Amino acid sequence: MKQSKWIWKPGDFELYHSMLLHNRRTYQGIYYPPMWRVDAPARNVMLYKRAEIEQRETLTVYSNAKQASFLVDNTRYPAGTTVTLEPGKHFIKLFGYKPDGFPAFYCVGDTFASDESWKFGSYGARDAHAGANDMYTEPGDNPEIFKFSYERIAPVSAEETNGGTLYDFGKETFGKLIFENLAPGTSATVICGESREEALCPEEAIVYVDLCEENGGFVSTTVAFRYIFVPALGCDYSLCADYEYLPLENKGSFRSDDPMINKIWEVADYTLHLNAREGFFDGLKRDRWVWGGDAYQSYFVNYYLMNDKDIVRRTQRILRGANPMTMHINTISDYTFYWIAAMWEYYFHTGDKQFIWASYPNMLTTMNFVTSRLDEDGLYAKRRGDWVFVDWSTFFDKDSGPMCAEQMLLCRAYDCMAKCAALLDDEKTAEKFTELKDDLYEKINRLYWDEEKSAFIDDYATGNRNVTRHANIFALLYGLTSEERKQRIIDCVIKNPEIPAITTPYFEFFELDAMCSIGEFQYMTDMLHSYWGGMLNHGATTIWEEYFPEKSRVENYAMYGKAFGKSLCHAWGASPIYLLGKYALGVRPTAPAYEAYEVRPNLMCFGELEGTVPAADGTVWVRMTRDAVTVRADLAGGTLVLGDKSYPIEKDVELTVSLSS
Amino acid sequence: MKQSKWIWKPGDFELYHSMLLHNRRTYQGIYYPPMWRVDAPARNVMLYKRAEIEQRETLTVYSNAKQASFLVDNTRYPAGTTVTLEPGKHFIKLFGYKPDGFPAFYCVGDTFASDESWKFGSYGARDAHAGANDMYTEPGDNPEIFKFSYERIAPVSAEETNGGTLYDFGKETFGKLIFENLAPGTSATVICGESREEALCPEEAIVYVDLCEENGGFVSTTVAFRYIFVPALGCDYSLCADYEYLPLENKGSFRSDDPMINKIWEVADYTLHLNAREGFFDGLKRDRWVWGGDAYQSYFVNYYLMNDKDIVRRTQRILRGANPMTMHINTISDYTFYWIAAMWEYYFHTGDKQFIWASYPNMLTTMNFVTSRLDEDGLYAKRRGDWVFVDWSTFFDKDSGPMCAEQMLLCRAYDCMAKCAALLDDEKTAEKFTELKDDLYEKINRLYWDEEKSAFIDDYATGNRNVTRHANIFALLYGLTSEERKQRIIDCVIKNPEIPAITTPYFEFFELDAMCSIGEFQYMTDMLHSYWGGMLNHGATTIWEEYFPEKSRVENYAMYGKAFGKSLCHAWGASPIYLLGKYALGVRPTAPAYEAYEVRPNLMCFGELEGTVPAADGTVWVRMTRDAVTVRADLAGGTLVLGDKSYPIEKDVELTVSLSS
Repeated sequence: MKQSKWIWKPGDFELYHSMLLHNRRTYQGIYYPPMWRVDAPARNVMLYKRAEIEQRETLTVYSNAKQASFLVDNTRYPAGTTVTLEPGKHFIKLFGYKPDGFPAFYCVGDTFASDESWKFGSYGARDAHAGANDMYTEPGDNPEIFKFSYERIAPVSAEETNGGTLYDFGKETFGKLIFENLAPGTSATVICGESREEALCPEEAIVYVDLCEENGGFVSTTVAFRYIFVPALGCDYSLCADYEYLPLENKGSFRSDDPMINKIWEVADYTLHLNAREGFFDGLKRDRWVWGGDAYQSYFVNYYLMNDKDIVRRTQRILRGANPMTMHINTISDYTFYWIAAMWEYYFHTGDKQFIWASYPNMLTTMNFVTSRLDEDGLYAKRRGDWVFVDWSTFFDKDSGPMCAEQMLLCRAYDCMAKCAALLDDEKTAEKFTELKDDLYEKINRLYWDEEKSAFIDDYATGNRNVTRHANIFALLYGLTSEERKQRIIDCVIKNPEIPAITTPYFEFFELDAMCSIGEFQYMTDMLHSYWGGMLNHGATTIWEEYFPEKSRVENYAMYGKAFGKSLCHAWGASPIYLLGKYALGVRPTAPAYEAYEVRPNLMCFGELEGTVPAADGTVWVRMTRDAVTVRADLAGGTLVLGDKSYPIEKDVELTVSLSS
Repeated sequence: MKQSKWIWKPGDFELYHSMLLHNRRTYQGIYYPPMWRVDAPARNVMLYKRAEIEQRETLTVYSNAKQASFLVDNTRYPAGTTVTLEPGKHFIKLFGYKPDGFPAFYCVGDTFASDESWKFGSYGARDAHAGANDMYTEPGDNPEIFKFSYERIAPVSAEETNGGTLYDFGKETFGKLIFENLAPGTSATVICGESREEALCPEEAIVYVDLCEENGGFVSTTVAFRYIFVPALGCDYSLCADYEYLPLENKGSFRSDDPMINKIWEVADYTLHLNAREGFFDGLKRDRWVWGGDAYQSYFVNYYLMNDKDIVRRTQRILRGANPMTMHINTISDYTFYWIAAMWEYYFHTGDKQFIWASYPNMLTTMNFVTSRLDEDGLYAKRRGDWVFVDWSTFFDKDSGPMCAEQMLLCRAYDCMAKCAALLDDEKTAEKFTELKDDLYEKINRLYWDEEKSAFIDDYATGNRNVTRHANIFALLYGLTSEERKQRIIDCVIKNPEIPAITTPYFEFFELDAMCSIGEFQYMTDMLHSYWGGMLNHGATTIWEEYFPEKSRVENYAMYGKAFGKSLCHAWGASPIYLLGKYALGVRPTAPAYEAYEVRPNLMCFGELEGTVPAADGTVWVRMTRDAVTVRADLAGGTLVLGDKSYPIEKDVELTVSLSS
């Protein structure tokens, strides 16, 4: 018998888990859904497969749906039946209806073992290959239950205070609270805190758990916490938790002689792992949602840490949702542009062409949505319901018209769309988007370039001719202007202290990437020490959503007008892993799918450093001291670059270059 | 406080109950879903309302969803909360998530009492008025439970036979079987039969009930039956049933001095009531689905029997399903055309403009779907996945190209679409579809008319120039040719015994309507006696799906290659109610919404007749003997027509005209 997989309507697995996760947020116990459309999987599904067999074989069909049957040629059987197929042509159709989840099927057989070779019957739309996921290959699996791992954890301390007990689990974590030995009828509101202060402030804490005894115990839904405050329950109960996580293996590593940077790397690592779930989350405590901008940055960290392909695929599917597309991803125009860019970047880092192929129809409809809403000049201008984010958009006016930064992201999206189309041999589409890209490039450089300021201005409609770093950083990162202008941007914007500094860790990702790309490593390592190091000095066990060095620890917990509104475990803070891998270890692909790559290590502020970077299906190990660089890689195509010298890296052959000469 | 209604995403109530009913069919216990896409309601919904209030008032929000909350301006509350609103502007948003049903809300208040004035938040698509239904106005209501009525019924006889007991409930019925006093662990397969023969033939019976004792009893899902066979259970159980029905009041009636016709009218009445459920079903035993052609005929019977508007609205919504439209309704092109026609005919008979307005976007997308798939000549030709039904299409070839009957139905759809557009003051669309109609009328009369045969031929592609009654009946019914050609059709097709007779009760509806419209009443009453009367002579308690007078009773039970495949309670057999109301009582609207109507009674084969016809919101009573006609109506606009004489009917004034002179 061939290995079978559970199969379903393509996309339903991601839509279902997206639906669950986007409906889990609460604020002080109140249901708090997203401000965008949450799509659901189908409740009725039909899958089919036609094949000719030469030998008699059997077929058994299982379904997770109570109401399920299958047709073998024209005879109908209930799910669970085994049928013998005689040699010849057969047409098998699976039918299932599941009102409270999504229908899935598991077929045991040879030719008709269930896998992606089955088709989804769309009833007149577009039949496609069935969905499947390598996590679900056993008949006892249930794709409605996401395959998390669990580990029992206990508080490291308990303290009697405020008329109850404050438990400290030692570090930020995520999971289900487990109460045992509760007296019958016990009920209470338990307060979760990412900080001690939050757990002890029920009026301002964000996450409540409504404890309600059942059979002497209680298990909560998943929550983020380090501290748990339990009011006196009048019984001798015990509290522990089941840490819920995805056991993703690290393929990247980094170690230096700077303990603070090492610690930052470890905390960033833990932060990303906590947020690596059904998809990449923004943060654990509050939204717990999948946001396109946060996810976009997580992808880059992922390529330098775990290099897990499936989580990128799942996240991209979750973000896109179902058709028809009527709003930008998370309502944010930038996030739609990142979503397209992320497709090409995914292929560039992993070489997984299959996913691009499967996603291509949704890429086309996404770009149709985008281009159908441009203004008469072919520029993106905010429309009703759109959120122009960039970096909280604080520098944006209501009447500012088309913003420079948005056109730059759109230009990047055109470029990536054209590349994906070319990859799939859709030359006509590739040409179309290359033309759109070239045209927009020209407009950006004509409409937004300020010759006097040697900078891109935020907008041209207001006449303010205001300059911020954002658009200029994008111009450097995505190559959206001439080399001459790039140099002027570096001199007059990037290195100009009069242009307001970036203050969010979200945009630090882009800024530090740009700074490193122009060799400003000192700026990056200084920022790691002061900004990331500043959080650690406040006792952070995960990276925060935002940080103000000039504010006190507790003042820093406030955000969105709430004393504990800030998420203290936010994925977008994990960027040091990406930056150190790409610029300190210096490993980066120079051709799609790591078919060519370079290793351009840089000691920066370090006396020595060492680490690995996942590279498509291989790994590159780098060690650098003041005296020598050593590289070892299990994939071909590498070049070690040191100053103006290049050394080919042979597969599986350790290369050492002395720096002492 | 204002009367509130439960509100939901528009269409979700119908989608939900459609989903349930279309997933209820079984064949010998095996799940048997439709061959078209079954759409589901949304699981996440947002509804909102903005209003300014002058006085302080309170608002309480309830939801059927466990996960529900609402925003008052920018403050979030859990469902169940009462909030006091101060004078001024307020923006209320309701959020709900219900994974296993559909979210609905009930708001108690004055300005913000929930009703259709609330809006559905589409997140960028098309915001629309909230859905509601007058059945659900109490806080304790649950729109997920369809409001059927129940009546306990008992078998009229029981007979020991075939190793068990055969129960006879006296007539065809529909409901839940109720077993009491079962021994623990009892389980058995119970056989339902519309006929005694079916109940006693487990190998060939269509509907099984898997009895499984629980707490000493068992209640089945709803099934159609007259006979129930229970194998010996070895305990002294009892069996009865809960008859499940919709308590729709008859507003139409008919009585004559012909007992057989009276009986046919009563059996047709019962048949339609049994099939009048969430929507109009095709039949009770087998499909239990909503089919466009069956429903189309039920509408006409309804206008002459119960004149219930909501069941037409529900049925039309169920048929249309959700967007995007990717297949014809029930996969059948004719049914899509009927669906459009039914909109105008609904307005014509009821005057309910609001429903046309609410359905208009779906009418437009339906016509977009239709016109985008026409051939290069603007004709409808079968495409892959389409089913061209007409009348089982037995006279259609695979290569017959565009069929005449289909163009005629499409032309009728264009005409009705244009009329609805004009009703809603969408002049541009009205003009467009009038042009399409005129153009298609010309093509039909040019491409399909055979001058020599004085008839419309089935198709022109094959060169067969075959003539059947179907297209020619449509030409008469929908006025699709000149008066001169109509007369030639009557002479050379309709009255020509060499043209094969119609053999299905489905198409008898159209034929008898056409025959009556040209005054061939004898043909109609003869057919009632022989065809409908023939079924009654076989002991039918409801009208069958099909009937062959030359076959025996038991032979007649067979269909679709199965011994008991035929449905013995099929809605499309109820047409005598429509035909007798329209042509014997002679009541029919001559302007939309019964603003003008005529009463043109005809004694036909009867010595006397009497009855009522619902007319928009009123009723017209007619009595006719050989000596006189008496008419009484509670609505204005009527004209009594007798031969070439006309008499205005005054509202609420009885008018008697003597025929003896």
